[in-house]
Amino acid sequence: MNVKHSHIVWEGSSWRLRVDTLVAPDGTELDKGFIEHPGAVVLIPVRGTAVSTSPEQTASPEILMISQYRHAIGDTLLELPAGTRHWHEDWLECAQRELREETGYRADKIVLIGEFWPSPGLSNELMRLCLATGLHPDPLPGDVDEEIEVKPMPLSELVDMARNGQILDAKSIVGLLKTADYLAKQP
Amino acid sequence: MNVKHSHIVWEGSSWRLRVDTLVAPDGTELDKGFIEHPGAVVLIPVRGTAVSTSPEQTASPEILMISQYRHAIGDTLLELPAGTRHWHEDWLECAQRELREETGYRADKIVLIGEFWPSPGLSNELMRLCLATGLHPDPLPGDVDEEIEVKPMPLSELVDMARNGQILDAKSIVGLLKTADYLAKQP
Repeated sequence: MNVKHSHIVWEGSSWRLRVDTLVAPDGTELDKGFIEHPGAVVLIPVRGTAVSTSPEQTASPEILMISQYRHAIGDTLLELPAGTRHWHEDWLECAQRELREETGYRADKIVLIGEFWPSPGLSNELMRLCLATGLHPDPLPGDVDEEIEVKPMPLSELVDMARNGQILDAKSIVGLLKTADYLAKQP
Repeated sequence: MNVKHSHIVWEGSSWRLRVDTLVAPDGTELDKGFIEHPGAVVLIPVRGTAVSTSPEQTASPEILMISQYRHAIGDTLLELPAGTRHWHEDWLECAQRELREETGYRADKIVLIGEFWPSPGLSNELMRLCLATGLHPDPLPGDVDEEIEVKPMPLSELVDMARNGQILDAKSIVGLLKTADYLAKQP
């Protein structure tokens, strides 16, 4: 597909809509909308420093989940904390900022454990999974449009919920399953 | 958040952009963009009728994956076949249509095995996972803007790729892991 025209139709505080006029090999023209997005962090805040790999022997690590009203779908979802990067913001600074805004904690250590495209058919948003450990209270004010409640929950229970359909948010399903895999491989 | 204004900024062939002026409890006003989306099917086409639950004893079932160029990200991704529902289209008819367009097969049986929100922060797109079995050749022409190659691959290998970061498309990671769980529970 060749691009004949390309223009920005709307620009908001965090992303913009670009519409491309595409020309197919047979000459057909088609307007398609694409979201130009700076990317987002998905946080996995692990409470406490002891991360066990053997759930039979010790308690499952606790993850700080959030319950958040989502205006787009008109419902409240259980999710991993996450947030859109500012254009040109350093990814690690973004992770620390969103963690402080959404959970009220700062992390001693943030490790990138994976990344994925949530909607590659229409957006170039890249999501990066950030495991956050060594949490200390250090809150930042949240966004005015966000209604968030922090819910600490055991990882083992969350993995079950991600697998059996009780968690409906894609980034949280991917993030929780990848976290369980990652922690199981730690010495 | 109260909605002060709401208007459609752009409408394409499959979804539209709505911009809401939201008013926070402190009186702050904020324009936010939301995608109004009819939803999408994510297909898991299983080749052959024999679906084994015991990978040690028999070969892993084969899934028809697709390799597709994604204009939004400027790269080719390995994905489960998927497609946007037409507004008011029956979900099962949508699944059969997209299966025929993207893989060239019709399915004797399509079972809904899960659903999730790929981007609930900005879109009301719901994705429904459709396991398709009993495949027979019955192609439909694909969309003019899609460049697709069908790639049959063993489920066991795909599950490894979903877990180790070789598959980067969120719906495919969720779909493959849920498929492995679903098939393992079948008698």
